[in-house]
Amino acid sequence: MKLATFTQGGRTRIGVVEGEQVLDISASGTVPTEMISLIEGGEQAMDGLRQVAGKATSFPLSAVALEAPVPSPGKILAIGLNYADHIEETGLDKPKEQIWFNKQRGSVNGPYADVNMPSVSHYLDYEAELVMVIGKRAKHVPRERAHEVVFGYMCGNDVSVRDWQLATPTMTMGKSFDTHGPTGPWIVTADEIGDPHDLDFTCHVNGEEKQRSNTKHMVFDCWDQIAHLSRAFTLEPGDLIFTGTSGGVGVAMKPPVFRQVGDVMKVAFDRIGTIENRIVAEKAETLIA
Amino acid sequence: MKLATFTQGGRTRIGVVEGEQVLDISASGTVPTEMISLIEGGEQAMDGLRQVAGKATSFPLSAVALEAPVPSPGKILAIGLNYADHIEETGLDKPKEQIWFNKQRGSVNGPYADVNMPSVSHYLDYEAELVMVIGKRAKHVPRERAHEVVFGYMCGNDVSVRDWQLATPTMTMGKSFDTHGPTGPWIVTADEIGDPHDLDFTCHVNGEEKQRSNTKHMVFDCWDQIAHLSRAFTLEPGDLIFTGTSGGVGVAMKPPVFRQVGDVMKVAFDRIGTIENRIVAEKAETLIA
Repeated sequence: MKLATFTQGGRTRIGVVEGEQVLDISASGTVPTEMISLIEGGEQAMDGLRQVAGKATSFPLSAVALEAPVPSPGKILAIGLNYADHIEETGLDKPKEQIWFNKQRGSVNGPYADVNMPSVSHYLDYEAELVMVIGKRAKHVPRERAHEVVFGYMCGNDVSVRDWQLATPTMTMGKSFDTHGPTGPWIVTADEIGDPHDLDFTCHVNGEEKQRSNTKHMVFDCWDQIAHLSRAFTLEPGDLIFTGTSGGVGVAMKPPVFRQVGDVMKVAFDRIGTIENRIVAEKAETLIA
Repeated sequence: MKLATFTQGGRTRIGVVEGEQVLDISASGTVPTEMISLIEGGEQAMDGLRQVAGKATSFPLSAVALEAPVPSPGKILAIGLNYADHIEETGLDKPKEQIWFNKQRGSVNGPYADVNMPSVSHYLDYEAELVMVIGKRAKHVPRERAHEVVFGYMCGNDVSVRDWQLATPTMTMGKSFDTHGPTGPWIVTADEIGDPHDLDFTCHVNGEEKQRSNTKHMVFDCWDQIAHLSRAFTLEPGDLIFTGTSGGVGVAMKPPVFRQVGDVMKVAFDRIGTIENRIVAEKAETLIA
């Protein structure tokens, strides 16, 4: 099942995507209309949703605005250096331990929304990534049970500001700019994907292919990641995990190439879909409100 | 004004601390009873609170449980290597750039609550820190206006798991264990503190002094921190900023000394108060719920 968060008629709610239609399950009044509430509702909420979906009003996808499927996740974790060809292009050693950082939750952005070229940097780069959406409260999850914890999968672009990222060893600042976490276009539920470790994916910029790989090339796979994270802290429904990018990023080109205002970054995952984000100049205005 | 989140009679709400009493402002029904809502309510909510406080029922502090003042912050940022004597004891160079990492929001813990000794590590260490509570939505804040953005201040203990922290350069994992962010005992509002850069503070373990410093020794002060963070992303009401620790941490002792189950860590800030947390053994049970 494909689950979207969409806005139509000035109202944002969740819906089921079938072909070129989105089924508006909110009219029933019996199913959560916000994604994290649906996820927290577990099997019961999903059963309710399936019952309602058959009778729901539908809109053409072209008549709604798709939003980030999880607009306000509790936390976003992202792993660095997790594909062999990406590690090779950076010239760094293959990590013995999983390297984790956070993107701020405010970086979440819609599948077709604009991404800011920061006023303080022009070293903007793309990173196509499979994003896991956590489905359960989870701690100390053994690797062999990690699949139970995943609600579904999305495309993600771990947009990175390379000078800010590389200025310190923690990566945090360069990964956390507002608008720099586009996800979507919907969540494909885990049952529909099955094993997430054989998905082809690409990243194009202005129509030109920049990245092409498959999730089977992860160094630490999805289950390793969940096992490791949950040894330290509790994962919560709606948390997002960016699972790493492959080779082909701009900063590793010789010479390095960065994005320009007006560029369009497109991330596509087999069996999930496509997100496409245009870069616009940030207006650097002081906000204190 | 001192604002606490407390539980009494099975109900958690906010109150005003005066001497050894907490004024229960929730009975009025006119003032937010949850801290982030109060902060978001701005001057109007604070005016309402002041009016209500004079007529409020009070409880002795000894009859209530003080909780983390902001139980569920949107995000937690923390700066590394921000006191000269701490930099010196680590043997690292004084950073040219602010080094930021996140603690997961689930690490938030009460002022007198137990802290887990992880089942996966025994390299637990303390870090006494001044914590800023953000009061406004804020982006691109110039240094000279940064004080406008702070709602108030708390004590914090940036509990750290040193082997997990040092296993990778990003620090994230070792700073993010559940229960590893005790804060409180209340928020002292910014108007009552004035300039936060002259506060004495200490950390004791089992009654023995381990850290003693003053916030004037920060390398990057509170205003630098807000200016820097807000160049990249929007700060939100209730966000927490851990402002760095001084020398005296266990990992820098020769030989290094780490905490034991049963140890009590006490962080005290002049003009704010004291938090005190006992270390207990974590039960490493798989949770998938």
